[in-house]
Amino acid sequence: MAVYTEVTDEALTEFLALYEIGTLTAFRGIAEGVENSNYALKTTQGDFILTLYEKRVNKEDLPYFLGLMEHLRAHGLSCPLPVRAKDGRNLQELAGKMAAITTFLPGVWPRQIRVAHCEPLGAALARLHLAGEGFAMTRRNGLGPDAWEPLLAKSLPHADSVLGGLGAELQAWLGQIEAEWPKNLPVGQIHADLFPDNVFFLDGKLSGLIDFYFACTDILAYDIAICLNAWCFETHAELNVTRSRALLRGYQSVRPLSQAEIDALPVLARGAAIRFLLTRLYDWLNTPAGALVTPKDPLDYYRRLRFHFAVSGAGAYGL
Amino acid sequence: MAVYTEVTDEALTEFLALYEIGTLTAFRGIAEGVENSNYALKTTQGDFILTLYEKRVNKEDLPYFLGLMEHLRAHGLSCPLPVRAKDGRNLQELAGKMAAITTFLPGVWPRQIRVAHCEPLGAALARLHLAGEGFAMTRRNGLGPDAWEPLLAKSLPHADSVLGGLGAELQAWLGQIEAEWPKNLPVGQIHADLFPDNVFFLDGKLSGLIDFYFACTDILAYDIAICLNAWCFETHAELNVTRSRALLRGYQSVRPLSQAEIDALPVLARGAAIRFLLTRLYDWLNTPAGALVTPKDPLDYYRRLRFHFAVSGAGAYGL
Repeated sequence: MAVYTEVTDEALTEFLALYEIGTLTAFRGIAEGVENSNYALKTTQGDFILTLYEKRVNKEDLPYFLGLMEHLRAHGLSCPLPVRAKDGRNLQELAGKMAAITTFLPGVWPRQIRVAHCEPLGAALARLHLAGEGFAMTRRNGLGPDAWEPLLAKSLPHADSVLGGLGAELQAWLGQIEAEWPKNLPVGQIHADLFPDNVFFLDGKLSGLIDFYFACTDILAYDIAICLNAWCFETHAELNVTRSRALLRGYQSVRPLSQAEIDALPVLARGAAIRFLLTRLYDWLNTPAGALVTPKDPLDYYRRLRFHFAVSGAGAYGL
Repeated sequence: MAVYTEVTDEALTEFLALYEIGTLTAFRGIAEGVENSNYALKTTQGDFILTLYEKRVNKEDLPYFLGLMEHLRAHGLSCPLPVRAKDGRNLQELAGKMAAITTFLPGVWPRQIRVAHCEPLGAALARLHLAGEGFAMTRRNGLGPDAWEPLLAKSLPHADSVLGGLGAELQAWLGQIEAEWPKNLPVGQIHADLFPDNVFFLDGKLSGLIDFYFACTDILAYDIAICLNAWCFETHAELNVTRSRALLRGYQSVRPLSQAEIDALPVLARGAAIRFLLTRLYDWLNTPAGALVTPKDPLDYYRRLRFHFAVSGAGAYGL
C-alpha cells in the first residue's frame, strides 16, 4: 500500500495550477511502493505520476534524487522525468508534504523473472552508470558498509529468535566483509535498489527504470552485486547462473568491467546480501504480529549470503 | 491496499489475448478498494480497470454485479462498463481468480465533502434507481436487516470494551429498528455503498459512480439513507442539514419520493447507521493490534445512530 497522505481535490487543483500540464482528468492511488505516496495522475495532456514524500525520505536528499533523474534522462536513460512547475522548480508542496510530478513510464515490471530479462537489465544498469557521469551532486549511501554495524546492533538481541546462532554468524560475516571491502573501485551514481518492481518491460524490451529514492554515490559494481542478488536466485536461493551470466554480459556490452571490479564481485555480492538481510531482519523483528503487510523473510538473503561466502571467485557468477 | 493477487506478465498477456482491446502498455496496482485486487490497465486502445475478485466476494454474485453495471450503462447511468471478451463473456479467469475488465471512468472522488457535491449525488442516485428498472436479476442484501442480529451477536461479548453499555444499547436499538422496519416501500436495484470514494467528480460535475460490489435488490429509499449517513455528517457526527437538503432535493428532481418513503426516512437512516456501525464494530474488534490498516472507528456511526433516534420525522433532514 502506498497512499499515506490524502489529498483534497481543492488542494490538488491548486497544486496543478502551478504546472503547465493541462487540467485534472483522473487521480488514483498506486498500490506499489512503500516509502512514499504515489498517485496515477491523468490530465488533459496525458499521464503523470504524483509522488508525496513521506517521513522515511530525507527532505534534503530530494534535490539529489530529482536532479539525478533529470540528468539521467538528459543523457539518454529511460526513466521518469521530473516535471518543472511554472516557477522552474521540480519540487513543490502539497498537503503539507514535499511533492513532485514525474512523467509516466509505460511498461510492466516482471512478476516472474526470466533469463531474457537479465541481459537488458545489465545493459540498462551500465547505461545508468555511464549516464550518471558528470552529475554534479553526490549522496552518501545511507545503507552502505558504515550503516551495517549499527543496523545489526539493533537486531542482535532478537536475531536468534529467527534462526539459532544467527546473531553470532552475522557478526562474524560482517567483520569479514568489512575487512575485505574494496577501496579503489570506480565510484559513481548508483540506483542501489534495482529490484524487479523497479524495471519495466514492454513487448519483451526493457522500457525503463523507476524509483531512484535509494540512489547514491557509491561503487558502481556494487549496483551489479545488488542486481545479482535481486534477479539471479531461484526461490530456494540457488544461483541461476544462466541469469547472472546474462546480466553480466549485458552490463559489459555497455561498460566493460575492470579486473579489479571482477575480482571484487564476490565480496560486493556478500555486502549486497548482508545489506538487504539486515534491513529485512530489522523489519521482521519490528513489524507487529498480524500487520497487513507481511515483512519479507530475511532468511532468503541469509541463504544468498551463505552462497556468496562459499564462492571462490567471480567465475561462480558465470564470468 | 487493494492488490492481493500478483499477476505474472505471461498470464496477463494471455488473458488480454481473450479480448479485443489492443496490447498491453502499462499495468499498476490501485491502492483504493478493500474487497478485490484492482489494477489500472493501459493498452494501445486506452485505459481500463482490471479487477480480480478475492475471497470476500461470492463468485455466484458476479453475474449480477457485472450484469447490473451493463444494464445501468445501457440505461444512461455513467458507471464502468464491463468489457466482453471475444467469447462474449464479461467474466474470465486470471491467476486462479475470477476477473473482469471494465472501462476507465474519468474523475476524482471528493476527499472533502462540500454541499455542492450533494445535489448531483442525489440526482445520480435517483438515476441509478430508475436505470435499474427492468434489470432481470435480483440479489438479496447480504447486509440487510436479517443480517444485523447475527452480526451483533458476534461482537456482543466484547462490545462494551469499545464503549460501556454499548452491547445492551445496540440490542435495544436493533429491536426497535426491526419492529419499525418498513414493509411496503418501492424496491429495486440499489448501490448500497455509495460513499464518497465511489463517486467521481470532474470540473465540478459528477462524472460517474463506481464499485457495485455491494449492490443488491432492496428498498430504494434505504440507499438514500445510506448516503445521508455517508455524506451529510460533520466530523463530530452532527448532521449538516444543508447537505442533506441538497441530497434530497437532487434525488427528488429525478425521482420524487412518495409520502410513505418520506415518513420512513428516519427508521431507514437508523437502519443504515446500525448496518455500518455493526460491520465497523466487528472489524474493530477483530483487527489485530498494530495492523497497517486501521479499522474505521465504529463510534462515528454510533453517534449518527443516536442522532437518528432523536429525530421525530423527515423534517430533520431538511424535507
